[in-house]
Amino acid sequence: MRLAELSERSGVSTTTIKYYLREGLLPPGERVTATQADYSEEHLRRLGLVRALIQVGRVPVATARQVLEAVEDDSLDLDSRLGTAVGALPGVPTLPGAVPDAATGQAESAVAGLVERLGWSTRPDYPGHTMLVAAVSALARLGYPCGVDELLPYGELADRLAVHDLDLMERFDTPVTRLEAAVALTVLYEPVLLSLRRLAHAEQSQRRYHARSDCGPPATADGA
Amino acid sequence: MRLAELSERSGVSTTTIKYYLREGLLPPGERVTATQADYSEEHLRRLGLVRALIQVGRVPVATARQVLEAVEDDSLDLDSRLGTAVGALPGVPTLPGAVPDAATGQAESAVAGLVERLGWSTRPDYPGHTMLVAAVSALARLGYPCGVDELLPYGELADRLAVHDLDLMERFDTPVTRLEAAVALTVLYEPVLLSLRRLAHAEQSQRRYHARSDCGPPATADGA
Repeated sequence: MRLAELSERSGVSTTTIKYYLREGLLPPGERVTATQADYSEEHLRRLGLVRALIQVGRVPVATARQVLEAVEDDSLDLDSRLGTAVGALPGVPTLPGAVPDAATGQAESAVAGLVERLGWSTRPDYPGHTMLVAAVSALARLGYPCGVDELLPYGELADRLAVHDLDLMERFDTPVTRLEAAVALTVLYEPVLLSLRRLAHAEQSQRRYHARSDCGPPATADGA
Repeated sequence: MRLAELSERSGVSTTTIKYYLREGLLPPGERVTATQADYSEEHLRRLGLVRALIQVGRVPVATARQVLEAVEDDSLDLDSRLGTAVGALPGVPTLPGAVPDAATGQAESAVAGLVERLGWSTRPDYPGHTMLVAAVSALARLGYPCGVDELLPYGELADRLAVHDLDLMERFDTPVTRLEAAVALTVLYEPVLLSLRRLAHAEQSQRRYHARSDCGPPATADGA
């Protein structure tokens, strides 16, 4: 397909597509004349991933290039490429402490205790670890509950989601589509998870507190 | 305590505290002289919440004011104040479609099916619902798996987390501290959840793929 069609099918403007091509986020099309190139279904799929990274993952262009290079690098095995690609994704915002403080120490022990309780073999250099310590430090710094016992339900559920996510990824059958899916599913399921949690809060809060004053059925979670 | 001590204990500069006071995000201190005011532990706690909203939740100042007004508004019952406060929090970034398209329709049915399977009574005007449809549309638009079956594990786990979160909130014993906790825990546990999911991916990927090529123990999740 020509650039105009790639733009129409992807919903991305031709100016933006040209920018992505210049920045190496999309491989060049097959040149057909001096001024025209032909693009394939792979370009369309890759363009979707680039948009997911930049618009949903808020990934800077240089980082997106790094993620995509890891996806393409067939000198490495699948697990290493996956680790590099996902590891390059930027962290979620947390509340930075100016300097490591008592809350940082408290968070580090809570995370170490959690990893042990979950039977994980992750180390502090794994993707997500530093971000987790920062996120737990923010809770500790403000005096909110964030010990191993409070974190454990979150950890157990994350563990189950990860198994589910890998199953989804395995539906894709080539290394490149599988790695693209891993990156896309990591980024695109984050807003799904957060919005489901907000919706679940509304549901559970209604069950727990509305049943007390309204004439609805007794709330099952009531008094848990 | 004086402004300088409030700044030192919170890690927030006096300039920023003055800005929050002017914007009505912090109640005024008790005036002791023409130029000095006295601040309490409640100011310190509230300042923590404001930082969590602005720095972690990326909440605009006007929205933060709206959230805090709902927290303080004792003309409403707890569930309504909770709904208003949490409902005012901005959504997480998703991939916008220019116009509602086939993917939007697909996402709307998937979400309706999911809500039914979960036995929830949430409606499209609930906090999180629009955000969830947008997040699922992005997956649909890029051709990634996002039907009821794929969403269900996420929904079930969100449901359990919500029960856990309400239990944490109930540890706080006045309406205001409980509402503050609900807002803070909603915002501050989001990066905990996302970083735990990333870390769980690393753990599960290692179990599943490393065991195949390395001499480690057989992966239990292998071939699931």
